[in-house]
Formats: sequence, C-alpha cells, structure tokens
Amino acid sequence: MRILVSNDDGIDSAGIHSLVKSLKEIAEITVVAPHTEQSAVGHAITMQTPLRVFEYHKDGEFFGYAVGGTPADCVKMGIRNLMESPPDLVVSGINHGSNTAINIIYSGTVSAAREAAIMDVPSIAVSVTSHAVKDFSFAAKVSQMLAKEVYEKGLPPGTMLNVNVPNLPEAKIAGILVTKQGKSKWDDVYEKRVDPYGRNYYWLTGNMLVVDNELEIDQIAIQKNYVSVTPIQFDLTDYAAYESMKEWNIEKLFHAKTV
Amino acid sequence: MRILVSNDDGIDSAGIHSLVKSLKEIAEITVVAPHTEQSAVGHAITMQTPLRVFEYHKDGEFFGYAVGGTPADCVKMGIRNLMESPPDLVVSGINHGSNTAINIIYSGTVSAAREAAIMDVPSIAVSVTSHAVKDFSFAAKVSQMLAKEVYEKGLPPGTMLNVNVPNLPEAKIAGILVTKQGKSKWDDVYEKRVDPYGRNYYWLTGNMLVVDNELEIDQIAIQKNYVSVTPIQFDLTDYAAYESMKEWNIEKLFHAKTV
Repeated sequence: MRILVSNDDGIDSAGIHSLVKSLKEIAEITVVAPHTEQSAVGHAITMQTPLRVFEYHKDGEFFGYAVGGTPADCVKMGIRNLMESPPDLVVSGINHGSNTAINIIYSGTVSAAREAAIMDVPSIAVSVTSHAVKDFSFAAKVSQMLAKEVYEKGLPPGTMLNVNVPNLPEAKIAGILVTKQGKSKWDDVYEKRVDPYGRNYYWLTGNMLVVDNELEIDQIAIQKNYVSVTPIQFDLTDYAAYESMKEWNIEKLFHAKTV
Repeated sequence: MRILVSNDDGIDSAGIHSLVKSLKEIAEITVVAPHTEQSAVGHAITMQTPLRVFEYHKDGEFFGYAVGGTPADCVKMGIRNLMESPPDLVVSGINHGSNTAINIIYSGTVSAAREAAIMDVPSIAVSVTSHAVKDFSFAAKVSQMLAKEVYEKGLPPGTMLNVNVPNLPEAKIAGILVTKQGKSKWDDVYEKRVDPYGRNYYWLTGNMLVVDNELEIDQIAIQKNYVSVTPIQFDLTDYAAYESMKEWNIEKLFHAKTV
C-alpha cells in the first residue's frame, strides 16, 4: 500500500510525525504537508501566487515535502507532481482539535482529505479532540486500523472518512461509531483590541453551541468518549430545496421580471 | 429589506459596485468585503492573525467596510460586529468567473453566502461565467430579482442559492433553471518555472473536465446559455455511505484490533 500523508498543522507538528510512524508499519509513505500552520483555511487553494516545494529533513533524514501553500495544495501537488502515480490512500492529520459539526467546513485537515476524494483517491482525515494533545499514539493506531480497512474494503467514489478521536487514554475509550455531521456551530465573538498605535484590531473567538443530542452525531459521539467516523462527500446540492423550488416557477418569474 | 453585500474579488472590484447599485433600488445596503482579492480561498477564516476593518470610500462617499480577511470573515464580521442586527439577506458577488461543479468547493464567493446560511441568514452567491466581464448589469438585474424572491418566499434554514449568469447580452439568455451541482472537476497541471535565482516554483493551471451532460446540472445549464440557480447546503454527511458502512461492523473491528 502507498499512502500520501498531509495535514494542516504543518510538516513539523507532532501529529503528523506520530501518524507517519504508525502508517510506516503498513505502507510506503510520501509526506507532502504545509510549510507553516494552515488551520481553518478550509478548502483554499493557491492561485494568486506560485507554490514552492522544499525538502524537509528530520533527524538528518528526508521526511517529506513541505509546500508553501494550503492542505488542498499539498494533496494536489503530491498526487500530480511529486508521486510517480496516485497513492492508494491519502491520510490527513493528526490534527490537534476536533473537526466535527460545522468545523468540517473550516477545516484544512478535512479539506486535504476532501481534495483527495475529488481526485478519486480514498482518504481519511484524523483529529484528536483537544488543542493540548500530549500523546497522539492511540489516534495513530486508529488511523492505521482504518487505513487497512479502507484499503481492503474501499470507499464509494467521492467519499472520505472524517475521524475524531477523544483525547483520552485508550482504556477510557467507549468504542467506535459511524456518525453523521452534527449541526452544532460557533457563536462567534470578535474581541476588539487596540494596537500600540491606537488602531483597532479584532480576534475571532467564540463558543461552540451544541444543538444535537443523539449518539449517531459526530459531536455527541466524541463527548461520550467514542471514536467518531463520519463518511462525507462533496455534492453540496440541497436536493430537498431543488424539489421545493419547483413551486417558485422561476422561469415565468424570469421572463416577467427580466428578459 | 436590509442586505449585507460581500464578495471575493475585493471591495474595489467592478462586480460588487454593479451589484450594490442594483440592490440599492430595493433595499438598505451594508457592504463588508475583502480589502484584497480572495479568489479560491474557499471557506477559510482568519484565526492566526487578527482582523482589521477599514472604511472604504468611492467617489468621495462612504461605500462600505473593507476587511483584511476572507469572504467568510467579512460575513461573520458584518453580522456580528458592523450591523446593528442581522440582515434579511446576504448577497455575495458579482464574481467574475463561474462557480459551478467542483468550483463551488474552492469559491470564496460561495463561501461568503454559505457562511450567511450557517448563521441562519438567507443568502445568494452570484457569478458571471467569464474572467473578462465587461458588463455586470444583467447579472445585477438577476440578483435583484432573486433577492426579492428570496425575501418574499424565504429559503429553508441552511440553504443558499448559488447563481451563475452566462456572460452574454440579455437577449441571448435562454432562460433560468433550478439546477444541481455538477461533477465536473479540474485536471490540474502544475506549470514549473525557474526564478531569477535558479529556484523552481509552480503555478497551478488546468482544464475543467466536463463529465455531465444534463441540462439540470449547473455546468451544462450555463453552457446552454441558461442562468443557473443551484440550492446548496452544508451538511456533508454521505448518507449512502453511512448506511453501507454498517456492514463493516466497525465496532467489532475496533475491539479486535485496538482496545
């Protein structure tokens, strides 16, 4: 098995090193990851500026390619330019901080895996549910298990797995669940500050408003100490609205009001 | 009606000025748009650096707020900080270049509208299908028509409209269609160049591979000279895979291979 590994925390983050160590036991690994932290960049790609690619060494050995761009850039660059042929699997992570509910939309970790799914390569995004992770080894073990399963069983075209692992010792994990993306979202607050020159600036802060309560929802599963595995896809069409908008008679409206 | 207008081409782009002019005929407008071009930033939000907000004037009059961030930042900042209460509608655009099929994922224009939908504000993203648009006035007229319709009829919570207008004179427009997101995607190519100092850099280029052929698909509708209106939403769960993954017996697997 050949695996492309990326992330959004940057190529020198602890999570990706733990992930690579675990996946090396089962596959040939190519690392293509952002040169610097790219959290919350969503599915940004770099088009206004060119990309640079650097060879990154760790402990005197070649570890992987650092790209001066986003997680989605790294996956495109890895598959199109740096690997001789597309990998069997892309694994993105291990992220520090959960990527559940609305966070899936903003997440660079998830977008790296989603870019792979767009490119017809099965993929997995892995996150641990804390910004202060001391030990990624259990999440790395889960990543290895799921990588083997996806390699054996495959995923439907365009589907990826978004995995969230509670930040707990292995013995305290309740189990693993296939889940759905929750509806919890951020109650955003901009914290206003004044710089040394008397000008205002704003930091985005806020609290997650948890609006779900069923165990089959990603956010609730992790709160109940389960590993959450959510299959996600990238067709954003609202099919219910597509049907209900037929009542708008939009074509008549258009001819009456415009043309 | 009160409308928040944003975009991804930046507050000084022609498209947003044409849009504001048209929407002012039917609503009170607040403009909050990126200070600089933010194409292809997807749903990135700014968390690593603080945001700045500038007052932007045009022809000696206050036009709106320029934010040193992404389209999604602008919508959050507009709704949370700059407007006294949430608007009735958010309109994002008018973008130069189509946002159909896979481009929806990468688009800052769409992400601004999607951020509004996340914040429970109905929204519309509008694009013209060319990077060399000379006249946004027809797209601005369509925007006004749809803004009125959405205000009167509402949208389901979490739904937004992604609108693409062919870059044609009004008389050549075939009509308007409610459509679905297509599966067409980019065949990416990285163009390698060498800088004056002998180092490599890469520009992302490529061609859209059109894989659909039905008129009900956004990409095909615009190719046939129709205005395309796609309802989109942000639940990315792959419900078919959610069901089919039950056969994986993931819980048993987990206990056998990890805990």
